[in-house]
Amino acid sequence: MTKKIIFDTDPGVDDAMALLFAEASTDLEVVGITTVHGNASIETTTRNALYLKHAFQLPATVAKGADKPLSIPPGEPITFVHGENGLGDVDIPDTFPQDVDARPAYQYIIDTIKAQPNEITLVAIGPLTNLALALQADPSIASLTKEVVIMGGAFGYNGHRGNITPVAEANMIGDPHAADIVLTAPWPITMVGLDVTQETIMSNAYLAELKDTSPRYGDFIHSVSRFYADFHQTSAGLDGIYVHDSSAIAYLIDPSLFTVAKGKLRVSCDGITIGQTVLKQDERRYPQDDWYDQPTQQVCTTVNSQALRELYQATLNKA
Amino acid sequence: MTKKIIFDTDPGVDDAMALLFAEASTDLEVVGITTVHGNASIETTTRNALYLKHAFQLPATVAKGADKPLSIPPGEPITFVHGENGLGDVDIPDTFPQDVDARPAYQYIIDTIKAQPNEITLVAIGPLTNLALALQADPSIASLTKEVVIMGGAFGYNGHRGNITPVAEANMIGDPHAADIVLTAPWPITMVGLDVTQETIMSNAYLAELKDTSPRYGDFIHSVSRFYADFHQTSAGLDGIYVHDSSAIAYLIDPSLFTVAKGKLRVSCDGITIGQTVLKQDERRYPQDDWYDQPTQQVCTTVNSQALRELYQATLNKA
Repeated sequence: MTKKIIFDTDPGVDDAMALLFAEASTDLEVVGITTVHGNASIETTTRNALYLKHAFQLPATVAKGADKPLSIPPGEPITFVHGENGLGDVDIPDTFPQDVDARPAYQYIIDTIKAQPNEITLVAIGPLTNLALALQADPSIASLTKEVVIMGGAFGYNGHRGNITPVAEANMIGDPHAADIVLTAPWPITMVGLDVTQETIMSNAYLAELKDTSPRYGDFIHSVSRFYADFHQTSAGLDGIYVHDSSAIAYLIDPSLFTVAKGKLRVSCDGITIGQTVLKQDERRYPQDDWYDQPTQQVCTTVNSQALRELYQATLNKA
Repeated sequence: MTKKIIFDTDPGVDDAMALLFAEASTDLEVVGITTVHGNASIETTTRNALYLKHAFQLPATVAKGADKPLSIPPGEPITFVHGENGLGDVDIPDTFPQDVDARPAYQYIIDTIKAQPNEITLVAIGPLTNLALALQADPSIASLTKEVVIMGGAFGYNGHRGNITPVAEANMIGDPHAADIVLTAPWPITMVGLDVTQETIMSNAYLAELKDTSPRYGDFIHSVSRFYADFHQTSAGLDGIYVHDSSAIAYLIDPSLFTVAKGKLRVSCDGITIGQTVLKQDERRYPQDDWYDQPTQQVCTTVNSQALRELYQATLNKA
């Protein structure tokens, strides 16, 4: 059965690549795109979402979300990763309709979940501000949401612990207070963190090949990824890009590509560990235990990278 | 060559076991015992240090240290672990001399290190308040100290991350601000954390055997460990005790019992991760990096438990 998803995003190069992957998949139906601050300002990420909607005729509703984190000062746009325009500085015309939903993203999320109880999957690949605002405004949505898949965090598997600090991943440190609200809420969460997303690389040759094999999306994906690939080359000496956001989509299409660990989640909101995600796997009750009463969630620990790349390519080629 | 050590301690059952281990070793000379709050109040831990000094005719000077952490409220004495009197409720007479040094522990540490430059090893097996106070009063001691061996912390090796919270070990959360000062100072540190101390267990049979084989210390060690062993039985279903503090002494006598990892250390002082130790092993500079400029230290990652137990027994039996 097709999974209906709301795609919460801050496009963002790899956000765009993940959105097109979701759109191309016959297993998924992107009913809504909610935008959030993160890779760029909310104006830029919303403009980019609308551009993608119209450039690729996506049927999804676009709702504009939070412009800043709940409690910490907003970060600077990371133009050195995603370019000045957030989409790797590819040309973006200004001739498309600005048909954004009248509701703020959190209200769109609440309304959509309540209208289709237990049918909506939330896929969040940016800071978690919109999801936290939705939970705060209507906690009942937690039990009405089918599933929550989050690209974010790092739990030490395969040696991965952070990319902004030695212990914090970008989406979590982007709004740690929101992340702690979302990760401790009673809905079924799967974390797709750096543990797995930095284990899968799409090489420049792989991305170039998509140009030829995917008539609908290949050319755009190759173009949009050039600036992002340059950043990976400069910062990590990588020939290609880490597959962050598309790994969350891959999990939704084929969870068997991943192994998971189960436990209770928290996010540090203070000091040198701010943005660090913690998974408590044992059932032991510690003298001081901020995890004990949390719901049990799951965290991806390994990925079949080759199969993931094949799934991405096959999905886009068919579209 | 015999290593001269200052033994910073909060006796404490396993502190007493480690002190006698150090005293029994011909490789070590315990020149000073500095007391600190922790397993019990400073009055109790100092009384216990003086009792051990006189009961076993230890030549070491005893100096009384800090009664509370630098910045957080003092914890409650953990009488359910170490007994009401901090030594497993064995009988402690009140007939021994109260010959405590006139100086506070931190000043004794400074004076002793400066009088014998590069000859003194600090062994710290309680909260790190005294060492932090010494560094604050005279930062020059860092470069004059031969070595610092610390029982504390947990770095995730062998699945061990905390014993007070899911991420924090007792000595570190006992004074996190002091720990962060000590672990970031430019002296050569080896951390002997839960990663290895919870990998070595002395069974009750092993402790009973010491009674017969070590005429000088065996009877006391067996008696003092009964209450502590009961705590381990109740809390962890363990037949015996974890070898926390004596593992630091074993490291000093024979470092080849351990493997180590190298990197930069910090201690979280805030929020849900307070007291968590973090080792940053890679040389990568992160966008936000509170570790980068720290000195490189080492952390024990594995231990030869059987050899450690044999070393402890052989050392005590010979004394």
